[in-house]
Amino acid sequence: MGLPAVFNLIILISSFSGLCHAYDYKTYFYRQKVDHFSFTNDDIFIQRYLISDAHWNGNNGPIFFYAGNEGDITLFADNTGFVWDTAPEFKALVVFAEHRYYGVSLPYGSKSFSEPKYSGYLTSEQALADYAELLTYLKRVIPGAKDSPVVVFGGSYGGMLAAWFRMKYPHIVQGAIAASAPILQFTGVTPCDKFGKVVTADFARESNECVEVIRKSWSALNTVTADDEGKAWLSNSWKLCDPLKSEKNITDFKDYLSNVWTNLAMVDYPYPANFLAPLPAYPIKVVCSHLTDSSKDQRALLEELNAGLQVYYNYTGEAKCLNFNEQADVRLDDNGWNVQTCNEMVMPFCYDGIHDFFEPAAWNYTAFEDECHKNYGLTPQPFMVSLMYGGRNINASSNIVFSNGLLDPWSSGGVMWNVSDTVVSVIIPEGAHHLDLRSADPQDPQSVKNARTLEKLHIRRWIENYHIQQHSLNGI
Amino acid sequence: MGLPAVFNLIILISSFSGLCHAYDYKTYFYRQKVDHFSFTNDDIFIQRYLISDAHWNGNNGPIFFYAGNEGDITLFADNTGFVWDTAPEFKALVVFAEHRYYGVSLPYGSKSFSEPKYSGYLTSEQALADYAELLTYLKRVIPGAKDSPVVVFGGSYGGMLAAWFRMKYPHIVQGAIAASAPILQFTGVTPCDKFGKVVTADFARESNECVEVIRKSWSALNTVTADDEGKAWLSNSWKLCDPLKSEKNITDFKDYLSNVWTNLAMVDYPYPANFLAPLPAYPIKVVCSHLTDSSKDQRALLEELNAGLQVYYNYTGEAKCLNFNEQADVRLDDNGWNVQTCNEMVMPFCYDGIHDFFEPAAWNYTAFEDECHKNYGLTPQPFMVSLMYGGRNINASSNIVFSNGLLDPWSSGGVMWNVSDTVVSVIIPEGAHHLDLRSADPQDPQSVKNARTLEKLHIRRWIENYHIQQHSLNGI
Repeated sequence: MGLPAVFNLIILISSFSGLCHAYDYKTYFYRQKVDHFSFTNDDIFIQRYLISDAHWNGNNGPIFFYAGNEGDITLFADNTGFVWDTAPEFKALVVFAEHRYYGVSLPYGSKSFSEPKYSGYLTSEQALADYAELLTYLKRVIPGAKDSPVVVFGGSYGGMLAAWFRMKYPHIVQGAIAASAPILQFTGVTPCDKFGKVVTADFARESNECVEVIRKSWSALNTVTADDEGKAWLSNSWKLCDPLKSEKNITDFKDYLSNVWTNLAMVDYPYPANFLAPLPAYPIKVVCSHLTDSSKDQRALLEELNAGLQVYYNYTGEAKCLNFNEQADVRLDDNGWNVQTCNEMVMPFCYDGIHDFFEPAAWNYTAFEDECHKNYGLTPQPFMVSLMYGGRNINASSNIVFSNGLLDPWSSGGVMWNVSDTVVSVIIPEGAHHLDLRSADPQDPQSVKNARTLEKLHIRRWIENYHIQQHSLNGI
Repeated sequence: MGLPAVFNLIILISSFSGLCHAYDYKTYFYRQKVDHFSFTNDDIFIQRYLISDAHWNGNNGPIFFYAGNEGDITLFADNTGFVWDTAPEFKALVVFAEHRYYGVSLPYGSKSFSEPKYSGYLTSEQALADYAELLTYLKRVIPGAKDSPVVVFGGSYGGMLAAWFRMKYPHIVQGAIAASAPILQFTGVTPCDKFGKVVTADFARESNECVEVIRKSWSALNTVTADDEGKAWLSNSWKLCDPLKSEKNITDFKDYLSNVWTNLAMVDYPYPANFLAPLPAYPIKVVCSHLTDSSKDQRALLEELNAGLQVYYNYTGEAKCLNFNEQADVRLDDNGWNVQTCNEMVMPFCYDGIHDFFEPAAWNYTAFEDECHKNYGLTPQPFMVSLMYGGRNINASSNIVFSNGLLDPWSSGGVMWNVSDTVVSVIIPEGAHHLDLRSADPQDPQSVKNARTLEKLHIRRWIENYHIQQHSLNGI
């Protein structure tokens, strides 16, 4: 069946972009309030969302709603195959909603990140209210959706939103699949050194030498690049697009490397994939196959490191040079996330180089706060998330599956215990970052197949209970 | 024991006002954020709260927290004897928090209601976040309160806040006593004519003639005051402080009368009380003892009505004249509530004069919206409360007692069914507006005694479960 005529009232465009999309959907836009909680600002903005009714049972069948996170929503639509794979079985309407301030859903256009007057409405609370409004609207205008149960899906920050959406709006969403959702990665809840330890452990699974090469690389980098000759050597040897000239360059370069090792841990998938970069199956294994001898001298060690790094930035063989200033994926928007880390998404990280393989770095909140002031005019609220959502005290919630892969560093901030009968933890030992949300693949380990089966069992129960409750509510 | 030294950091004043207070407490102030959900406005304001630790067990004993509603917090402290009566038994710390924009807790002083720029932060969502912040702060700074369970109490709009506080912040408040909380009195949830029918039924319990006198009084008033002679007659006969001159005066006068009949239904308590006015026990019975013959001619009917009305405005015998422009209680702040009805607290009321005794009046949303625009520059959001809090769909919540008296017209919007094992409805057949929250009285009917016993049972269970859960959480 087609979507209703009332949809013509809002702008409809075909889905298009320079990228090729894996799934078929239509693109719509909703006029959303900028501020849902106060009455000082009547501005509206245009929020993008994607819909597919290819398998929808128009008679109160479920709505599968993806709570968009920090990027262009098409990126998440392309990488959340589980929703697409599962919709036919449940005859579900599929909706992917773009998070405010990402993709094309910019409340104040190019000014959106310029100052708190415009950027200040970029909070999870406002984003959840957007989703609540949008779903209420969709259930009202789509014929046959009035009594549709809603299942929310999300991965990573989207998984946090999915869990919080069920906690705060249980009358709108009947259950949440919160994949790799680090809702505990906040001040006073999780120690700052836990994340780096998981990254390191992923490399240690392959070999201790691999870990040692990376651990020693920081001082090698510092020593080698201490003079101009060394900077030139490394720039040539590693084929850097922009040669290293300044201390700032060195810092940025090391930050890039830290991010690469972290990203590899996140996307250590069992088959070739292209989430943060085009990569082979189990990319850490491939990287580590190059990092085999930590006893080499510093320049030889760095050449070894470079060979491993190329797996990450040049698996396709098409890169002419290494651009360490480039974002992992242009569709993951750093502008927005940087603002969010400077208001409520204050996640402390620290490394000691002993229990992890990173260059030692304490969590310096004061310096962080200063940067936020300087860059965005924002004062971070490191305790806001726990105040709003409860930290570990989530036993009053219901109908949430928290899934975490043990390869995923974000499992450090995940809910890894069964909170109650209906708020459950699913551990995927061989899983990286929200592997379970990806499309089924012949290379999938059994553990992720089991996780998906369990998730579908919960979804089925939520839907059944919803219909029972709706029935009894109609009797009041 | 005394309150901790850290309290000296904030201003401490003795509780004082022109009124005599029934209970002993100290007054404190907290620096509160004006906007909890966005980062566009860093303003803070000073929120008042009252504390008594007279009976507190400083070793993680419970906190009894009253969620202040639309008035000076001392009014609610004086009229919520149940909290004071019960605190010793539970060794509870008692906290009464003033709602933003009421009493002395005005975020922008005298400008607070002047325009949306200042008045726009007066929403229930912001008020709940105030309470969440305040409680988190108190548990941090008061020695021995770190693991204190919190029970929230509220009556009327305060009862709505109490229920919503538990729904939205179950990690901060373990259970809610929501007395006479009309959380369903909103567009599309409860028919607009239900409220007036309950008011009328309260008078019908005394006599049908009483109802008939009031029902006929509107046309009598319209006819008699149609000319100047009639206006003068009524002004003299009723000893009005300001004689009726204009159509506007007549409308205001009739609005005053409607409010009186409504207020009487709300405060039809079994003993003399002074909540909205000093009144005898069961004041409707006393009023109706004067309204006995609806067959009289119009002027005689109005004289009868006047005799009944004097029970309300002059029970003390001290009133020199009838001031129909006066507020019921100066401590109930119309400024703030009028703003709230013009943003999210849009409660539709309508009367037909047939199934109720009021002058017929349809619910005219357009006219209402125009008034809000004109008076406050605000556009009401009639569906906001249901979007935020769920309307009747509250089965995912837990640990709430909804108590309603059948004499109370606000029971029309109350939760009158058991939602679940832990979200329960307590009906008090002989109860008016939050009678159960008032201090125990020898005249109390058995039904309110039973209600309080049940409420205490639930409170005890919430406290016990909290300690069990804290214990298990410490093991994670």
